[in-house]
Amino acid sequence: MAVGNVTFPEMKKVSGIKLGTSNAGIKQTERDDLVVIEMAEGATCAGVFTQNAFCAAPVHIAKEHMQQSPRWLLINSGNANAGTGQQGMQDAKASCSMLAAVVAGEDKQVLPFSTGVIGENLPVAKIEKALPNAVSALDEGNWNQAAHGIMTTDTFAKGASLIIELDGHPVTLTGISKGAGMIQPNMATMLGFVATDAKISQGLLQKCLSVAAEQSFNRITVDGDTSTNDACILMASGCSTAPEITAESENYSLFAQAVMDVCKRLAELIVRDGEGATKLMRICVEQAESNAEAVQVAKTIAHSPLVKTAFFASDPNWGRILAAVGRSGIENMELDKVEIYLDDVCIVKNGGRADSYTEEQGQQVMNQEEILVRVVLARGKVMQEVLTCDLSYDYVKINAEYRT
Amino acid sequence: MAVGNVTFPEMKKVSGIKLGTSNAGIKQTERDDLVVIEMAEGATCAGVFTQNAFCAAPVHIAKEHMQQSPRWLLINSGNANAGTGQQGMQDAKASCSMLAAVVAGEDKQVLPFSTGVIGENLPVAKIEKALPNAVSALDEGNWNQAAHGIMTTDTFAKGASLIIELDGHPVTLTGISKGAGMIQPNMATMLGFVATDAKISQGLLQKCLSVAAEQSFNRITVDGDTSTNDACILMASGCSTAPEITAESENYSLFAQAVMDVCKRLAELIVRDGEGATKLMRICVEQAESNAEAVQVAKTIAHSPLVKTAFFASDPNWGRILAAVGRSGIENMELDKVEIYLDDVCIVKNGGRADSYTEEQGQQVMNQEEILVRVVLARGKVMQEVLTCDLSYDYVKINAEYRT
Repeated sequence: MAVGNVTFPEMKKVSGIKLGTSNAGIKQTERDDLVVIEMAEGATCAGVFTQNAFCAAPVHIAKEHMQQSPRWLLINSGNANAGTGQQGMQDAKASCSMLAAVVAGEDKQVLPFSTGVIGENLPVAKIEKALPNAVSALDEGNWNQAAHGIMTTDTFAKGASLIIELDGHPVTLTGISKGAGMIQPNMATMLGFVATDAKISQGLLQKCLSVAAEQSFNRITVDGDTSTNDACILMASGCSTAPEITAESENYSLFAQAVMDVCKRLAELIVRDGEGATKLMRICVEQAESNAEAVQVAKTIAHSPLVKTAFFASDPNWGRILAAVGRSGIENMELDKVEIYLDDVCIVKNGGRADSYTEEQGQQVMNQEEILVRVVLARGKVMQEVLTCDLSYDYVKINAEYRT
Repeated sequence: MAVGNVTFPEMKKVSGIKLGTSNAGIKQTERDDLVVIEMAEGATCAGVFTQNAFCAAPVHIAKEHMQQSPRWLLINSGNANAGTGQQGMQDAKASCSMLAAVVAGEDKQVLPFSTGVIGENLPVAKIEKALPNAVSALDEGNWNQAAHGIMTTDTFAKGASLIIELDGHPVTLTGISKGAGMIQPNMATMLGFVATDAKISQGLLQKCLSVAAEQSFNRITVDGDTSTNDACILMASGCSTAPEITAESENYSLFAQAVMDVCKRLAELIVRDGEGATKLMRICVEQAESNAEAVQVAKTIAHSPLVKTAFFASDPNWGRILAAVGRSGIENMELDKVEIYLDDVCIVKNGGRADSYTEEQGQQVMNQEEILVRVVLARGKVMQEVLTCDLSYDYVKINAEYRT
């Protein structure tokens, strides 16, 4: 069901970051579902986590362990360890201890992540059994395996990788993500893991990630449901020969932009794999008074089941877009000034259908696999973009049959 | 696709309120799509209208004419006259003039209402041609015909009717509603028309309706999309032999409760006819700090596509309900105190699955056609209920094929 180009790229190794996978048989036996990531000593690590109040046990533990110079990430798919109460907390801690025992580290140096079905207890015995294989597989070349290991209802593995140059030294950024449903990240996406060999302090790294997540993972929505397990981690091994990045340097800007690029690609791939998706829509709200206002209008459109089903049907039912803008809650909107475009085709002007609009023009854009919806509010100077996908029969099918 | 009992009741005539229908062939030719309602001279009339900023032309005109002691309602289905700019305003005014000419009234005494496809110009010539037939059909016994005349994607006509006694005199309340999609009314529903022969001032009547709409039409959601055309009108002919209702009387309380009962039934019928609906869910949030908070949690659950598809599949996937509560934006929620029930079955307690819960219990409730979801927040004393339906293949089908 992938929309457009979702080719898994050549994943550049990140010096100082090793990955290993194995099969724990948590929900299935055909493919690896356990991933261990090891960071070189002295690496820094930043994270953003779900704002869902019912956040999962591993999110609680990972946030706590973030303060302790973490060295290992332990990720399982097939079980979210969410809605599991005190047992869930014990299980998340136990899995950290198990990995610590195998690698001769400390429990608190392990960050746990889980994704999959909510409300079932984590099968820790299965994880314990599969851990040694994942650890002995640790290698800088295993990004592809790791990208597959974190998948749940995803239909393809998601990766992004690039190399920038800082003062003539190469710095690599490579990352993976997953998530095809329960996607409206609030501070992070379902799961994203990005690594770099740059040398950078934890504080600066966190700043990079927070800014990038806000403009990438926090700008996508499949179904408007914010997961209990969202997390995105940015690791910096410091193994590059490039000089340390400091706040004031031009290098910081270059690096921050690269983090943004990788996060945006990883976020976009999640929407391209949105459950049942057949189309990708970029909802771009321009001339808003504030970022919040632009995002509010864009998300109201992006969440409308009526808009989403119209896109699925390639129906240029612009009235539904107009109705969504109208109910988005922006006060004192001057409706006569609002303009709405499908790609370059103006569909709404002066409070109604644009005089120049023809159904054929709208149909032509709607037949495309990727569509830009531009809403010009004529209130200010701010622009924000939200990515989403359509709502198809297969969305219902996938989610009606998820646990069977 | 009706869920549960949707029998069209015996519609008691309301003295002083006549209805007439005819076929204007606006979108189809098989059934009447034009409705005229005439109120006796001296009748009072209250209204609540959509809060969608892009509200339709007839909503603008109806609000304006509400101030002028209206005598007639003119309703068409098949075309919403929304997103039609200045032309739409002219067309809505023209249709008022046309009816005024036939009944020898004034333009400003006519309230226009339109429902149907957005963005196409109102075919006023067709309406003009069909108006005389509707007017000559005016009769107090035509509630059934009118209920059918306002339907769009509705699969059945919606009516409610009851008689109360005030000081030994009978007072009748009879109403109709429509709306199966783009349903998350904000101050009113798609279209609702309720009439009574009570004698009551406009101010009191408006108070009755506003309170009733808030607890009925504003507590239902099918797809979270607030329409551009929502309106509910309450007409009081004053033809009953009962004494005039005044603010201080016990009669006012009896009457207000009857208005509430009729509105609640009409609202519930809309959800029972929700596009593609196979199940009715009552989302009841208890022990909240405020009404707003309770409604916020209930609507977050009611709008979640993941929750709705799980109900469609009769899957007791309580994790999705818990995740929706968690992302509903209530600050400082004490998760360990939150309890969630499916009917009488406790599914969540102490932050996770209730110890007593078994999948069989959950499955048994989920197999029902009507399900109560109770969320106990343990924060305060307020309770609010929202009605919604599930998300099925047919929802996608209906909305993907709407304009074809």
